[in-house]
Amino acid sequence: MSGYPHTFRGFAIADPRDWASPKLTEFEPKKFGARDVDIEVECCGICASELFSLKNEWTHAPLECLSSAYGPKSQVVGHEVIGRVVAVGDRVTLCRVGDRVGLGAQCCACMECARCVAGNEQYCARAVGTYCDRYPDGYVSQGGYASHVRAHEQFCFPIPEAIPSELAAPLQCGGLTVYSPIKRNIAGLENPKVAVIGIGGLGHMAIMIARALGAEVTAISRTNSKKADAAKMGAHGFVATAEPGWQTELQDHFDLILNCASSTTALDLDALLPTLKVNCNFISVGLPHVDEDFRGVKPFTFFSNGCCLGSSKLGSREEAIELFALAAEHGFRPWVETLPVSEAGVHEGLTRLDKGDVRYRFTLVGFREFFGTA
Amino acid sequence: MSGYPHTFRGFAIADPRDWASPKLTEFEPKKFGARDVDIEVECCGICASELFSLKNEWTHAPLECLSSAYGPKSQVVGHEVIGRVVAVGDRVTLCRVGDRVGLGAQCCACMECARCVAGNEQYCARAVGTYCDRYPDGYVSQGGYASHVRAHEQFCFPIPEAIPSELAAPLQCGGLTVYSPIKRNIAGLENPKVAVIGIGGLGHMAIMIARALGAEVTAISRTNSKKADAAKMGAHGFVATAEPGWQTELQDHFDLILNCASSTTALDLDALLPTLKVNCNFISVGLPHVDEDFRGVKPFTFFSNGCCLGSSKLGSREEAIELFALAAEHGFRPWVETLPVSEAGVHEGLTRLDKGDVRYRFTLVGFREFFGTA
Repeated sequence: MSGYPHTFRGFAIADPRDWASPKLTEFEPKKFGARDVDIEVECCGICASELFSLKNEWTHAPLECLSSAYGPKSQVVGHEVIGRVVAVGDRVTLCRVGDRVGLGAQCCACMECARCVAGNEQYCARAVGTYCDRYPDGYVSQGGYASHVRAHEQFCFPIPEAIPSELAAPLQCGGLTVYSPIKRNIAGLENPKVAVIGIGGLGHMAIMIARALGAEVTAISRTNSKKADAAKMGAHGFVATAEPGWQTELQDHFDLILNCASSTTALDLDALLPTLKVNCNFISVGLPHVDEDFRGVKPFTFFSNGCCLGSSKLGSREEAIELFALAAEHGFRPWVETLPVSEAGVHEGLTRLDKGDVRYRFTLVGFREFFGTA
Repeated sequence: MSGYPHTFRGFAIADPRDWASPKLTEFEPKKFGARDVDIEVECCGICASELFSLKNEWTHAPLECLSSAYGPKSQVVGHEVIGRVVAVGDRVTLCRVGDRVGLGAQCCACMECARCVAGNEQYCARAVGTYCDRYPDGYVSQGGYASHVRAHEQFCFPIPEAIPSELAAPLQCGGLTVYSPIKRNIAGLENPKVAVIGIGGLGHMAIMIARALGAEVTAISRTNSKKADAAKMGAHGFVATAEPGWQTELQDHFDLILNCASSTTALDLDALLPTLKVNCNFISVGLPHVDEDFRGVKPFTFFSNGCCLGSSKLGSREEAIELFALAAEHGFRPWVETLPVSEAGVHEGLTRLDKGDVRYRFTLVGFREFFGTA
């Protein structure tokens, strides 16, 4: 294998049937742009998005990379990257070589449209996801289970010294994904009350973040099995929906329900939504299989309180920086189990995450040693 | 027939199969409360709610009145009432005998809960609808196709002199139902852009109201058949969704989409929702058959812009008063065809509305002459 800067190395699949066993491969990075940054990866979180992407469950089309005009015909995933900047394009102003930065689930946007200009670059129509997504020139983006990643500077976030890399990693995608809707929905409210459904990778960070933002937090799970954990994460209240009548005391209670469970068909919206205050939102951040929907949503679903159902995508650079400052100030950290990066480590992380055998997030570590980039 | 105050007279059905032919009947009003007001009806709008209620399509249970503990075993509908106050309870302070007032789709609330106190009495858990709804004592409310109606003073709205009764009537339910979500969703925005789907009874008022509130209004219909009418109502733009590619020019355009079409299954949310700006709402105010839902709603439905889908219920007293002042100031009026009240007139209005043969609202008139209350 040769190496950087002409090629990167990473763990890739070329067939969704091999989703659990990415193989070490060498691949060509995207063309280096004037606002691009190369990051030498130090560690990378494992996000549930990887399972859906590697299994190719978010589309009905073949893996995007297989039909790309040029570039790799296999796919590297990973979008909770922490590393050091090793190269910057001519027009980069937001970071310098040597900086520790993070990269989340988005690696590019046009930075010219109304959404980008307004600080909503995650909703740019030309946004490119950090992996499995097509750049305008046809190159399909490759993720952070790799020696290096290349990304637009806008999406390379400075990380406060106080947060260790392996704990900062899950904040890049999972943390930001829950921070943005919590912040936007409770902005300006006095004593906001937030419900978090699903105490998993996303939910456990949502509890900490909502609490740090000043909310009274209620964790909602199917059973009581995670009740003690939720309290340690900072939840003020806990509800097990398997217990009949749980919702009686909570009518007209929440300013926001954040659904972090990745399945939607199991949700009883008719029981959940009346716990919202008038005109408040139920925001679902988990993205299930492309064919899985909310069941039986109709106007009457929302009628008792004029509430709304929606989703939210990642967060902006500004929100990412706010989130890291909040974590540094309040001292909350994702609960992370580290796994050494290697074909075996990637396999273990993906298969255990697929079985739900994680409390609550994996970070692959030791990239510099493995790739010899230290 | 004897008469008021011990009995009211109105047009009632006792079987949903007779929905199109309510018969003149005499019935006992609810017990007179200290904050109740009796209105001698002058005219009453015909709302699509009547069709769903008389056909009993909003529940799977029998007509509510058939199982009521006391009171009428038949059902009078009508909730766009204009009339004169002829009696007030001991604690009434919001109107006086002789006042012209309007009554919409809600006739009671607790006026003590957090929602009532905050000016969201339409979302009170103890709200009572003007017809087909049960008071705490078991009496099932009777509507305004009648000589008189009895309602809590909170829901008896003063009507500005400038607005003729037959044109004020449709504002009481239909107008308020669209005013509240438009106002709440565009409050504080500069140059808001509002889409109104469905140019019918609700939609035609929504166009006028959104324009009067300062919005740029786009009317959305299936075909171009109502394009000229929409322009007369004040729509700045018009879209026919039967024409392929209609949405291309409208990506990231609207601050609010208000769905006034009473059917939801025909809506192509995947085409409509991307026309919203980031974090904006699609609010559906039509209430279809209880079994009719939005098709295939999933997190990905909302993902391109973090938008939300929801509903809205009526409006508050404060909003009703704002709406009437807006209509008086801006001079907009619902487009109304009047029908003389009688068994034949009620039959004609209901059957023509059921066929969509109305442009755009019916008001039943001549109540005082018919009932001899003049």
